[in-house]
Amino acid sequence: MKRPSGRSAEQMREIRLTRHYTRHAEGSVLVEFGDTKVICTASVESGVPRFLRGSGQGWITAEYGMLPRATGERMQREASKGKQGGRTLEIQRLIGRALRAAVDLRSLGENTIYVDCDVIQADGGTRTASITGACVALVDALRVMKQRGAIKKLPEVQMIAAVSVGIYQGEPVLDLDYPEDSAADTDLNVVMTDKGGFIEVQGTAEAAPFSAEELNAMLALARQGIDQLFALQQLALDS
Amino acid sequence: MKRPSGRSAEQMREIRLTRHYTRHAEGSVLVEFGDTKVICTASVESGVPRFLRGSGQGWITAEYGMLPRATGERMQREASKGKQGGRTLEIQRLIGRALRAAVDLRSLGENTIYVDCDVIQADGGTRTASITGACVALVDALRVMKQRGAIKKLPEVQMIAAVSVGIYQGEPVLDLDYPEDSAADTDLNVVMTDKGGFIEVQGTAEAAPFSAEELNAMLALARQGIDQLFALQQLALDS
Amino acid sequence: MKRPSGRSAEQMREIRLTRHYTRHAEGSVLVEFGDTKVICTASVESGVPRFLRGSGQGWITAEYGMLPRATGERMQREASKGKQGGRTLEIQRLIGRALRAAVDLRSLGENTIYVDCDVIQADGGTRTASITGACVALVDALRVMKQRGAIKKLPEVQMIAAVSVGIYQGEPVLDLDYPEDSAADTDLNVVMTDKGGFIEVQGTAEAAPFSAEELNAMLALARQGIDQLFALQQLALDS
Amino acid sequence: MKRPSGRSAEQMREIRLTRHYTRHAEGSVLVEFGDTKVICTASVESGVPRFLRGSGQGWITAEYGMLPRATGERMQREASKGKQGGRTLEIQRLIGRALRAAVDLRSLGENTIYVDCDVIQADGGTRTASITGACVALVDALRVMKQRGAIKKLPEVQMIAAVSVGIYQGEPVLDLDYPEDSAADTDLNVVMTDKGGFIEVQGTAEAAPFSAEELNAMLALARQGIDQLFALQQLALDS
Amino acid sequence: MKRPSGRSAEQMREIRLTRHYTRHAEGSVLVEFGDTKVICTASVESGVPRFLRGSGQGWITAEYGMLPRATGERMQREASKGKQGGRTLEIQRLIGRALRAAVDLRSLGENTIYVDCDVIQADGGTRTASITGACVALVDALRVMKQRGAIKKLPEVQMIAAVSVGIYQGEPVLDLDYPEDSAADTDLNVVMTDKGGFIEVQGTAEAAPFSAEELNAMLALARQGIDQLFALQQLALDS
Amino acid sequence: MKRPSGRSAEQMREIRLTRHYTRHAEGSVLVEFGDTKVICTASVESGVPRFLRGSGQGWITAEYGMLPRATGERMQREASKGKQGGRTLEIQRLIGRALRAAVDLRSLGENTIYVDCDVIQADGGTRTASITGACVALVDALRVMKQRGAIKKLPEVQMIAAVSVGIYQGEPVLDLDYPEDSAADTDLNVVMTDKGGFIEVQGTAEAAPFSAEELNAMLALARQGIDQLFALQQLALDS
Repeated sequence: MKRPSGRSAEQMREIRLTRHYTRHAEGSVLVEFGDTKVICTASVESGVPRFLRGSGQGWITAEYGMLPRATGERMQREASKGKQGGRTLEIQRLIGRALRAAVDLRSLGENTIYVDCDVIQADGGTRTASITGACVALVDALRVMKQRGAIKKLPEVQMIAAVSVGIYQGEPVLDLDYPEDSAADTDLNVVMTDKGGFIEVQGTAEAAPFSAEELNAMLALARQGIDQLFALQQLALDS
Repeated sequence: MKRPSGRSAEQMREIRLTRHYTRHAEGSVLVEFGDTKVICTASVESGVPRFLRGSGQGWITAEYGMLPRATGERMQREASKGKQGGRTLEIQRLIGRALRAAVDLRSLGENTIYVDCDVIQADGGTRTASITGACVALVDALRVMKQRGAIKKLPEVQMIAAVSVGIYQGEPVLDLDYPEDSAADTDLNVVMTDKGGFIEVQGTAEAAPFSAEELNAMLALARQGIDQLFALQQLALDS
Repeated sequence: MKRPSGRSAEQMREIRLTRHYTRHAEGSVLVEFGDTKVICTASVESGVPRFLRGSGQGWITAEYGMLPRATGERMQREASKGKQGGRTLEIQRLIGRALRAAVDLRSLGENTIYVDCDVIQADGGTRTASITGACVALVDALRVMKQRGAIKKLPEVQMIAAVSVGIYQGEPVLDLDYPEDSAADTDLNVVMTDKGGFIEVQGTAEAAPFSAEELNAMLALARQGIDQLFALQQLALDS
Repeated sequence: MKRPSGRSAEQMREIRLTRHYTRHAEGSVLVEFGDTKVICTASVESGVPRFLRGSGQGWITAEYGMLPRATGERMQREASKGKQGGRTLEIQRLIGRALRAAVDLRSLGENTIYVDCDVIQADGGTRTASITGACVALVDALRVMKQRGAIKKLPEVQMIAAVSVGIYQGEPVLDLDYPEDSAADTDLNVVMTDKGGFIEVQGTAEAAPFSAEELNAMLALARQGIDQLFALQQLALDS
Repeated sequence: MKRPSGRSAEQMREIRLTRHYTRHAEGSVLVEFGDTKVICTASVESGVPRFLRGSGQGWITAEYGMLPRATGERMQREASKGKQGGRTLEIQRLIGRALRAAVDLRSLGENTIYVDCDVIQADGGTRTASITGACVALVDALRVMKQRGAIKKLPEVQMIAAVSVGIYQGEPVLDLDYPEDSAADTDLNVVMTDKGGFIEVQGTAEAAPFSAEELNAMLALARQGIDQLFALQQLALDS
Repeated sequence: MKRPSGRSAEQMREIRLTRHYTRHAEGSVLVEFGDTKVICTASVESGVPRFLRGSGQGWITAEYGMLPRATGERMQREASKGKQGGRTLEIQRLIGRALRAAVDLRSLGENTIYVDCDVIQADGGTRTASITGACVALVDALRVMKQRGAIKKLPEVQMIAAVSVGIYQGEPVLDLDYPEDSAADTDLNVVMTDKGGFIEVQGTAEAAPFSAEELNAMLALARQGIDQLFALQQLALDS
């Protein structure tokens, strides 16, 4: 088996996490998984959605978008279409759920953190890159909240990262780019905590059904990749 | 551990599949997983979406809805809100993908099968019940297409069924109803083919992350449940 | 004259009213006028629309929908189109007005009853079936409100029922099914109270204008049909 | 009984029909029923909706709107709300049906006539004024079509006019203005042809149910009023 | 150079301002610039948008619309399209800004004045006619507010008027009608105060870029035209 | 007078134009006016809007957007609101008009160039930065069209650039950043060609009306700034 990218089966793309990428947001990270580039911002606002008012608890929610020409062919702008597509909503629900697992929401007070993940260039894996970058932006936003006195102490954060794996020509491969993803038999997105637990496992048979053995092989590969992501997140946050 | 429903961990709810439930659709099935009741219709139209025109290939697509008072509290009607929610879109994308795995689309000619899954009463597991019932409606629609001469021979169908599993009070349990789902630590939806392959595996940690061991235990349980569903589908189709 | 249905001019279809059809709603009735089948639910919520706040008075409102394949040809789902059509809005306004005539709204306290009429199979007369079934669901909801203590005593209900009549091949006929409706010269929907008063009379010339005499003949026929409906409503409520 | 307007029970408001009110439309009529003022334009376009293509037949359709401050309190502009309300859709469906009864659509060729009724000042009876004025605009548009050669000969037109009647303090009264309409027990809109047939009869009990006798008394009164409208339409068209 | 309209370069169309054109609005003006006819109403409501609550200050906002057949070819109704177009939004933002320059908003108390400009016939210059007419409607509305006691004294109003100028066949011309506008090289809309200051200057090169000299010549011409408009506004307000 | 930015009245911010900023688009430029950063892409598609089909002529259109946290306070995402705001539509209409002035559309064949300007960080002047950057992206897209053979020869391009000027504390100043813009009396956006002609002049009095002299002083200042922009565009295109 030879991957279109020339990478070995367990080799990730070059990953970069650039903090403070834009100026206004409390947390702002440019995350790059090779040619996939996503701006992740975390914005803090006081107040919570109606269903939480008076609970003393905070909220984290996510929105996802792509610039129209982030992709090989220009897609119609969702704002001009007048609605977000199903894929967009599915991805932003996933990002939101994943990030809410990172922090005890009771530690936020009645504040909301809006996480925006905007893909400026897409080459496969935009949802996993978004989660990985957004978790760093979230930590930065929490630090700003602490500085501003919105929260008294930094909540404990369980770092979250995500990667895609697939079965390509019968073999499990890590971190698929767009050409690999298009040709893969199975696509599996895995979100984990830095303590080794699974937050989300979403596997889809694209061409042929997959077996329990293949699933386990993919999960093992995902864990390898995610461990590297945790190290890079830590490096970025320490710098 | 004692399930709220009183069932044993590996016990499914009573499942019923009623074919020819409504009169107009080519396939029409009422599927019941206990108190969860979904009307699944399969409607055949000649023609395919633009991206398939001239390909000689057919298409299967799904839409999902809930009656406003299918649930404990009345939800606002999506038609009057002016848009389908993220959960709705996510579920109907899942149903469509699953059913497209059941049939070789090239065997349909340039025809489209619209599968509508409308929940008239909800008690957890509406998406898995929908997939299980819709596959039967799909077979009925194919038979009608054959009778009408829209296709020359019945395509081979790989039956598809789905069930949810979860971790409830630390133990894997099968086919969660709504109270169990609300209290579970993990929610896993599994879609399989009757040859034993996975089509979709979607696991979400609700309260606590889950481990690879827990995932495997849940998958084994799902397979048990799905095998029962395949038997019931066959029984319904043979009657 | 011979009706397509083989019925005599003043003969209604078989009518069935099944109470407690679904589990969650305070009132839930499956109403069948022959092959026309509508699920009518009445849901109680505390609070009223803004224009009634502080008035001490309640509100009753209705929404109407059809499953996409309730009809001979699949219709696009209104939720996915992003708006309710004119026919839908017209029918749900009619149902709401009719039901508000059944009860003195001041007897409800500041509570709102949402009536949802969802057609699962259509064969003509869906709006009249909806009104007839919804009035039974409304009574059930009022009984539940009384049990729960939301109201101190059961309000007096003026029962409401509705039927369609038409001119078919020059003769007035009662309770048109879809083939009859399509071929009729005139279509008249009549809503009455059990005391014999008219609540709504909506007559439309489809092919040829109609005369005052024809209108009166149709109204007399409608009254006959509606009297049968009142008897069936009472029977259902007493069971 | 004394009407708020001081008119006698069978007295209509002052009616005016001003043809060629605006310059661009093929037919353009300002219709005034007292203080109710509606601009009715009929616009001709070649081509028909999809369901009529190739049929050789034409189509007539109507749209209705109100300027935001046509009413006593400013209403939100439907264009800025992003949708037309149920009342608007109901009225424009009524106008369209009424006008399609005026002409044999086969005599139009594959042309569409768009009728726009825009209320610039409202004082009750906007839908009946709209129908009455729009029928005159329709005739003017047909004449222009003939001049332009879009049709070879003028189709025969069955003139259509409409008026509202009501039960006010127990007595039938003709052509209700807004204060009368608000206080009436019953509101009945009647659309007729100049040959004396009914096109639409829409009666709604506002406060108390109405009887067959009351309905007949109102219909007789409506006929009186509509006869006056036919005379005024003819006068306008002859000038 | 000869203008299509036959007017001289600095000659405006016949301008008419008819106050009290409709009955309900606090201010209601029909403004005519030749064949361009716009109904401008000013409606007063107590309360202000959220961002001004508690400020003691009022607000003025504008909406703009065209009847579908105000133009040579019928345009789709924005209410039925479900959104206002970019041109509409741009024009109503311009009108709103211009009128807010007419009055010190602090003198209004926490009241909002909604200005609606609805074009019933278009022949070029609808935005400038709208501004010119709306300012008169605004003054009338302020007078009504004073009469009703909503404000204690009439605020000082800086009258606002607007006109279009263009370069037609190389020469600056005043107050373009539609055929002139379509053929002009440059289109410039100018909004001024009666003290001679500019409120808005919006110049667009249609065919060829324009020079600073041309801009100045157009501005001088605009000032001439606007001076006539101020005189006509005053005449109307004094009558 | 001292500008908040510390710049002299005629001093622009640091301008940067980075070509080939993203990978997929035919033209892709990151334009920076100080802290204002906009990604401008030009995407080529064969085909033109309906009104140009068969004309042999091409089309250029623009869309504008901001990331939700491009600004000091997070704005709601237009895609999730379901519509683009008036400001967005106004700006993208301006950008489109400006770019269509750069090229003779007949030289494009029946191809459409979509220009997307997405603001990733805003600090005033986003529309002028967008136009300046988009013109460079347009040139790159034309070069790609030539390479791909979509057009036979490079069309002549009249370079377009834009800058804002204002009256700040009584003095004209060039290239306002956000704090300056918020405090300015007048805001003027100027779009010019490299031959010195004006394409758009849009001046708005924010606090006080402006005079012809002030307008001319601002225009002179704008020309100075734009000349620098043309030099920078040329430098970027030559590199």
